[in-house]
Order: sequence, then C-alpha cells, then structure tokens
Amino acid sequence: MQTRTTSVTVLGLGLMGAALAEALLRDGHTVTVWNRSAAKAAPLVAKGAVQAPDAGAAIAASPLVVVCLSVYANAEEILASDALAGRTVVQLTSGAPDQARAMAGLVTGRGARYLDGGIMAVPQMIGGPGALILYSGDEDAFTRHKDVLAAFGEARHVGADPGLAPLLDFALLDAMYGMYAGVYHAIALARSGGVTASESTPMITDWLAAMMHAFPEQARALDAGEFGTDVSSVATSQIAFPTLIETSVRQGVDPAPLLPMRDLLDRAVADGHGADGLHRLIPLLETGKG
Amino acid sequence: MQTRTTSVTVLGLGLMGAALAEALLRDGHTVTVWNRSAAKAAPLVAKGAVQAPDAGAAIAASPLVVVCLSVYANAEEILASDALAGRTVVQLTSGAPDQARAMAGLVTGRGARYLDGGIMAVPQMIGGPGALILYSGDEDAFTRHKDVLAAFGEARHVGADPGLAPLLDFALLDAMYGMYAGVYHAIALARSGGVTASESTPMITDWLAAMMHAFPEQARALDAGEFGTDVSSVATSQIAFPTLIETSVRQGVDPAPLLPMRDLLDRAVADGHGADGLHRLIPLLETGKG
Ligand SMILES: NC(=O)c1ccc[n+]([C@@H]2O[C@H](COP(=O)([O-])OP(=O)(O)OC[C@H]3O[C@@H](n4cnc5c(N)ncnc54)[C@H](OP(=O)(O)O)[C@@H]3O)[C@@H](O)[C@H]2O)c1
Ligand SMILES: NC(=O)c1ccc[n+]([C@@H]2O[C@H](COP(=O)([O-])OP(=O)(O)OC[C@H]3O[C@@H](n4cnc5c(N)ncnc54)[C@H](OP(=O)(O)O)[C@@H]3O)[C@@H](O)[C@H]2O)c1
Repeated sequence: MQTRTTSVTVLGLGLMGAALAEALLRDGHTVTVWNRSAAKAAPLVAKGAVQAPDAGAAIAASPLVVVCLSVYANAEEILASDALAGRTVVQLTSGAPDQARAMAGLVTGRGARYLDGGIMAVPQMIGGPGALILYSGDEDAFTRHKDVLAAFGEARHVGADPGLAPLLDFALLDAMYGMYAGVYHAIALARSGGVTASESTPMITDWLAAMMHAFPEQARALDAGEFGTDVSSVATSQIAFPTLIETSVRQGVDPAPLLPMRDLLDRAVADGHGADGLHRLIPLLETGKG
Repeated sequence: MQTRTTSVTVLGLGLMGAALAEALLRDGHTVTVWNRSAAKAAPLVAKGAVQAPDAGAAIAASPLVVVCLSVYANAEEILASDALAGRTVVQLTSGAPDQARAMAGLVTGRGARYLDGGIMAVPQMIGGPGALILYSGDEDAFTRHKDVLAAFGEARHVGADPGLAPLLDFALLDAMYGMYAGVYHAIALARSGGVTASESTPMITDWLAAMMHAFPEQARALDAGEFGTDVSSVATSQIAFPTLIETSVRQGVDPAPLLPMRDLLDRAVADGHGADGLHRLIPLLETGKG
C-alpha cells in the first residue's frame, strides 16, 4: 500500500516506544522523538529520527503525537502542554478504561483529538504480521491517520468510547492468562507421568487449536440467547471435575488452576443449567456493576 | 492406505461406542457389537454389524475388543470373561490413570493384551480429520493393531504405562478448561463494554492462536532447566494483575478466573523468580506426590 508520508512524534522510547518509532521510520515518515532519559533516542536518531529537546517541542513538531510511557500518570504530566491544540494524540500506554476516559477529557479539553490504543503485540512484533493494535475514541481522527498507524500492525477501531480499547486489551490478556494457567497445569500433569514439556506441548497446543473452533458457535448462541447444546453439556463437564482434581492431587500437581471452572460448573448445575451448553457459564460470570 | 480388514468387537454403543463401530464398518472390517440396551445395536446392524447375544459371545467373536462404556466399573464387570485369553482389549472408557493400571492388571491376568486409550474428540469427529486418540500400554499390541485403530482418527502410542494415555487425556482436558475459563471471562468483560460475544470472540481466538506460539520455546527452556527470558517476565505480569482484577470487578465481571494466575505470579515473585520467564510457574505447580 502506498502511504503519504507525514510527520509523527513519539513520546517515550522504552522497549515499545522505540519499536513504534522505528516502524514509522521504516515507513518513511518524518519522526520526532523524545524520551526522559535522552540517551535512548540515539539509535533512532542514527536511523533518521529528529530528537526534540523537551516534550513540548516534540509535541509542537507534528500533527500526530504517539505516546508510549510506562503508566498513564507519566503521560498526564507530559501532555499538560499548550502545544496540544489542533493535534491528534494516540495514547498507547497500557491502562484501565477509566484512565483512558480521563485522559481523553484532558486532551480534548486542550483542543486536541484523542485516540486510545491497546497494543496486542510485543515490541519484536511491531510492524510485522500478527501485530494487532486496538484503537478507540475519535473516529474521524482514526480515519484520517489509520494509514500511518498501519506502520505498527493491523489498526482496528473498536468504538468511540476511549475506554473500549483498554477494556478489550484487558479482555485479551485475561483470556491469555487463563490459557496459560491451563497449559502450565497440563504440562505439569504430563511431567508427573514422565512426559517432558517438549513432548506434551505440541499435543496440548494442537488440541487447544482444535477446541477453539467451538467458540464462534457458542458466541452466536449466547448473543441469540440460546443455551441448548448437542455437543457437550454443563452436567457432563461438572461430573468429570472431581476425578480431574483428584488425579491432579494424586499426581502431585496443584489443582488450583482447575478450581474456578469447577466452581462455575457447580454453580451452573445448582442453578438448574446442567443440560445447557458450556457458554451458559458466561452470563454466570456477569455479576453486574456494583 | 490399504488396510487388511479384520474382525473387531465393540462393547458399548453409547454416543461414542456407536461412532467407533460405524468408523470400523466404514473401513470394511467385520464388526461384532454388544450393548446393555440391545436396541441401540439396530442402526449398526442395518449397516452390516453383527449383534452378539451377550458380552461373552461378543468378546469371543474377535481378536480385537474395543470397550467404550460410561465408567470403568461397568467395563470391569463386562470384561470378567474367560473368553478374554489371547485377545487384545482396547479400553476407550474415560477414567483415571490408576483405574487404567488396575484394568490392565485384570485383563493381562486373564491372558489378554491391554491398551488404554484417551479419545480426544467428540463422536461427530471420529474417523474424520482432527480426531486424536492417545494409547498407552502394550506396545506390540499397538503396533499389530494400529492400522485398524486408525479408523477412529490419528492413533498415537504415548508409552508402555497403561495410565499414561488417561493422564495425558486429563492434561489436555485441564488445558481446555483453563482456556475456556479465560475466554469466557474475556467475553464477559467485552460484553460489559457493550461488545457482543460474536464481535469479541474472533479477536480473542486470533489472539490466543498467536500467543500459543510462545509455548514451544518455553517448553524447550523448561526441559533444559533455563528460566531466563527476553520476552516477558514474571514481574511484568505480576505488576499488571491488580489492575486487571480491579477492572474486572469495576465492570461487574467475576474476577475468579484470574485468581489462580495472580496467586502463582505472587508466589513466583515472593520466591525471587520475578526476572524469570513465565514458564517458571510450571515447576511452582509441582507440589510433589503426597
Ligand atoms: N513491552 C511490551 O511487550 C508491551 C506490550 C504491550 C503494551 N506495552 C505497553 O507499552 C508501554 C511502554 O512499555 P515498554 O515496554 O516500552 O516499557 P519500558 O521499556 O519500561 O519503557 C517505559 C517508558 O516510560 C518512560 N517513563 C517512565 N516513567 C516516566 C516518567 N516519570 N516520566 C517520563 N517518562 C517516564 C521511560 O522513560 P525512561 O527511559 O527515561 O525511563 C520509558 O520511555 C506500557 O504501558 C506497556 O504496558 C508493552
Ligand atoms: N461423548 C463424548 O464426547 C466423549 C468424548 C471423549 C470420551 N468419551 C468417553 O467415552 C465413554 C462413553 O461415552 P458416551 O458418550 O458413549 O456415553 P453414553 O452415550 O452415555 O453411553 C454410555 C454407554 O455405557 C453403557 N453403560 C452404562 N452403564 C452400564 C452398565 N452398568 N452396564 C453396561 N453398560 C453400561 C451404556 O449402555 P446403555 O445404552 O445400555 O445405557 C452405553 O453403551 C465415556 O467414558 C466418555 O467419557 C466420550
């Protein structure tokens, strides 16, 4: 794709910020950088970036300002600049939905447009295939800048509420940590039988990849309010759990990663949902905002 | 592949047993069937199966006897037959490793060979691509019969200990339930922001598929006793958890699926493993056989 090159500023040159700046340079953009510890700019300057003397000057240098600091609090300080007016701020620092909304208020209050983003990638993946960045907030700003943002990876706008990208970012992390807990438990259980991690892991990942195919239909059914199943019921899984847990304990493996699912299944059966499909567990997790 | 057709008996014609018998018929084998409730044999007889009058006669009919009942206790009763001598029993009823070992003792004590199996598939998948059946126990018997067993799906022998296939079966189920817990939590969190399950699910599954690529290297490192990382440390994840949990609660979603991972990460950091890679958590789950 042919992209008109433009001027972009990157504030924060940690592992991720540096990867973002590099990706912009690779795409031929004019890149102005700033970092608290100035030395971190050197490798980027060697590749053609312009180093600004302070954050205010960096902001003033470009219509598009990408921020990637460790936490929101640092970003707040740095964006408290009069130079902000008329620019678009793309905040890629990780944080909670509420922090994104507060930051959006601060930035738009200074006359700038605001996009919040969740980077679903490690720095090594930035600009390569498989890197996904979720954006939420000002849709016009996204439309205007999405060709430039494509330097980082797939740019997907998920909604006007600036808190939405951070929320989905967290949702994806939560899913990942759930999978990690399950896979680590499985590797430990296999090791208890003398099967090495290198032997069990391909079996586990192939199996999970196959089992993932159940989710789209479950999602469709949940959205439609349908809870029946012709594949596998809550009761079938619930009955299996005591043996799974007992075997884990007997093999000397902590059964803790299994317990949230056991509790959910028990609750679903107690509530009379035994004959339903497993996606019945999703609304059971929705306790309601307090 | 050209397979010599042979005689096979299937004991148990529930959802899974019937699928197994059908797959054998499709491959052209002579199939003798038996089920407690005799009526369930009718559709298979219509497809060419021979219905035996009782379990003993069914066992006597074939050198290879496949068993698929609801629980081991039922299988024990049915296999207490003098006709067993000289045959190979393939036990595909789900159970714990200890149950498989006890059953192996019973069957070999009657002069038969024993294979235990874990079916990593639903009945609809039997005989199709993606169906994996793990076998453990008598390796000679596996070698002799693996072409016939291929009727069910990929046949993989995982070791001589008959308890190994059930152990790995449980390990794969544990991994699956961990992934389910994570994905269900993620779908609930996305719904709390107004994102439907159908919208969030493809994002979640694509992300998990990408994140799975980390496991082979983690497995290799674990087997080698290496715990360093240049990707993502225990401490980085541990620091992120309080915000993930707080956000979940604030969005009205039960944070329970996140807690085992939180606890493991806390323990790893307390034990001085903060700078290690996440695979450091695997040995922390290994509490040792009691
Ligand atoms: N690394 C990843 O895999 C990854 C993946 C997805 C999202 N993210 C997110 O990306 C963001 C940056 O991560 P990173 O990996 O680049 O972290 P990092 O390498 O630790 O860099 C942190 C950055 O924040 C700056 N900073 C910290 N405190 C500051 C302060 N008080 N004032 C000004 N600047 C300050 C640092 O400046 P100094 O150089 O002066 O310390 C540095 O530029 C985080 O929100 C992270 O969650 C990272
Ligand atoms: N379905 C799956 O998705 C799946 C996947 C993997 C593994 N498996 C395993 O495969 C095995 C069979 O599952 P399934 O789905 O076929 O279950 P099912 O449809 O409930 O069938 C159970 C079978 O066990 C028989 N049975 C139960 N109690 C008996 C007794 N006291 N004496 C004699 N026979 C008895 C039943 O006979 P009647 O017809 O006379 O009741 C029937 O043939 C289970 O161990 C299951 O865990 C199933």
